[in-house]
Amino acid sequence: MTLRFTQNATDGPARAGTIETAHGPIETPVFMPVGTAGTVKAMTADAVRATGANIILGNTYHLMLRPGAERVAALGGLHRMMDWPGPILTDSGGFQVMSLTKLRQMDADGVTFQSHIDGSRHRLTPARSIEIQHLLDATITMALDECTPFPATEEQARESMALSMRWAVQSKAAFVPREGYGLFGIVQGSVFSDLRKISADALTKIGFDGYAIGGLAVGEGQEKMFSVLDATIPYLPAEQARYLMGVGTPDDLIGAVARGVDMFDCVIPTRAGRTARAYTSRGVFNLRNARFAADARPLDADCTCPACARHARAYLHHLFRAEEMLGPMLLTWHNLHYYQQLMRGLRTAIVERRLAAHAAALRAGWEAGDEP
Amino acid sequence: MTLRFTQNATDGPARAGTIETAHGPIETPVFMPVGTAGTVKAMTADAVRATGANIILGNTYHLMLRPGAERVAALGGLHRMMDWPGPILTDSGGFQVMSLTKLRQMDADGVTFQSHIDGSRHRLTPARSIEIQHLLDATITMALDECTPFPATEEQARESMALSMRWAVQSKAAFVPREGYGLFGIVQGSVFSDLRKISADALTKIGFDGYAIGGLAVGEGQEKMFSVLDATIPYLPAEQARYLMGVGTPDDLIGAVARGVDMFDCVIPTRAGRTARAYTSRGVFNLRNARFAADARPLDADCTCPACARHARAYLHHLFRAEEMLGPMLLTWHNLHYYQQLMRGLRTAIVERRLAAHAAALRAGWEAGDEP
Repeated sequence: MTLRFTQNATDGPARAGTIETAHGPIETPVFMPVGTAGTVKAMTADAVRATGANIILGNTYHLMLRPGAERVAALGGLHRMMDWPGPILTDSGGFQVMSLTKLRQMDADGVTFQSHIDGSRHRLTPARSIEIQHLLDATITMALDECTPFPATEEQARESMALSMRWAVQSKAAFVPREGYGLFGIVQGSVFSDLRKISADALTKIGFDGYAIGGLAVGEGQEKMFSVLDATIPYLPAEQARYLMGVGTPDDLIGAVARGVDMFDCVIPTRAGRTARAYTSRGVFNLRNARFAADARPLDADCTCPACARHARAYLHHLFRAEEMLGPMLLTWHNLHYYQQLMRGLRTAIVERRLAAHAAALRAGWEAGDEP
Repeated sequence: MTLRFTQNATDGPARAGTIETAHGPIETPVFMPVGTAGTVKAMTADAVRATGANIILGNTYHLMLRPGAERVAALGGLHRMMDWPGPILTDSGGFQVMSLTKLRQMDADGVTFQSHIDGSRHRLTPARSIEIQHLLDATITMALDECTPFPATEEQARESMALSMRWAVQSKAAFVPREGYGLFGIVQGSVFSDLRKISADALTKIGFDGYAIGGLAVGEGQEKMFSVLDATIPYLPAEQARYLMGVGTPDDLIGAVARGVDMFDCVIPTRAGRTARAYTSRGVFNLRNARFAADARPLDADCTCPACARHARAYLHHLFRAEEMLGPMLLTWHNLHYYQQLMRGLRTAIVERRLAAHAAALRAGWEAGDEP
């Protein structure tokens, strides 16, 4: 093992742990802000740190196209380029190739595609994906997989999963183990429990530093997502970290943490922040709404971020109405702060073995909604 | 006098001073970042402070339309709304009414116009402008004037200036003196030296806490602008601050400081920052330029701002190419930092009576250009 995961406490299937990495420790359960193109949108690196985040995610697809993996390497790697000395996880690029490119051709060995930026042709194979992530200096590298489209028949899902398992072998073969760096495999199998078990077993046999659950949050709904977690997590080794990719809302995070997931990434807090939606202890608000125009109260009285500690809701409303960049900046900051605060709360609740009560209190706050 | 200006040192006509205000002292010569609509674009208030700025400017025209002066007052004033407890100068709104609105009608008492935002009708008179600035809680209030269009005949300039002088009387009558707050008059007269003298004398007779020189940087060119300063400043009282409105480039600032100007505001550093143009000790760079794509050096080796201290030029180039918000954020920060550093350098040079040599060294750096 080149990444050490320590389970510090449990509360039912939920666990609080620490991943030791070459770029510092990660306390789990953890939420990773998404820094797609070498920046968490609308945030300086200092601001991301100030929210309490200690690991961020980078997108291999975007970075390989612009500025280019070799360019990032020449600039000292992603950590140095973006002023983020802490841990960085990069995805494999496969998901974005399928979701962002128009012209692409899959084969048994990889995928050939045209850049959505300039139409240039590129090829991604398991070995090239791992090489790119190495050039980026990813603390945690993801195996190349195919994110099975949803919905899929069981046969489609089986074939897609089998391809991902072959690519997982090739990804592992291409990965250069280094102390404090790690490679994660990705469980696929759509919503089919037996396929998920086969995939989890296959990956465990290959052996990874952590295990991701992919192919979820693609339209199947929270209930199905949770049932896939229930059908998958028992087959993943307890001594490694588990990462639910691309998830989710605060409620998704609570449910997945309760089921034993340790790591998450999602564009929700950053994207919502840019579109005036705020996640708060009293639910989701749209700051463009006219009801905030004269509201002198802080966005979330329970929050200590700059948007909440120093400004009125009416000011945030004004910034979005006036299309000032500071609106997205402050609301992204708030949402990321809220997500980090949520994860800190979950960690503490697990250590104190009161996760269920804590989760119920959080949900009650969202349901109560805004004070009149 | 409700604002105290102390001249601490002189070097020829140039002077270093301090303005004591209700919101803290202002060291002059000073550059005021422009916070048009209640935010310095692309900057948090903390970031503005970190550049060394200690006074910012707000635009009455924008704020009266959105969120509205009464709204700002209800939120505790502009300082509290935007988290800027330091001094704030607001303009009178007149300049933007003339430059931004399509339908407007001037008369002897004021101007009636339609909002560029929603077409709503508004009226600005000297008394209303002063009232709005009071509602905003401006530390320094500007008299309502007409910024004489350029070019203008001497007769046009005389009539326009005469109107501004009548409005200056009305502005003074409407202003509520408070300790640490002040009202500035604005010298007009286009490029005509005799009109500038008449205007300066008229304002001095009325008596203000400071004197602005308006109607410049409107296309007359640097040489004419400097000759207007030479023809105006001798007629302004030495014991009050002098403010050159809407100026300018670093070279403009040096020339005006050398002629005895104490205060400046301009959108150049913020607007340039949003469009990839960087002001540096080696001149102006456009970060979109392909020559920066692989340039691992800091933007300006002489600068300690986050853009320069923590990132490569290639990263800034990448951010603008990828249209990431962090590009404008970092480059605005840099440009404002550069302007503040420039003003600090000028202050020190005046105190040490070596302004001419310091200015020559700065200009030599710009002319030398970027190292290969």
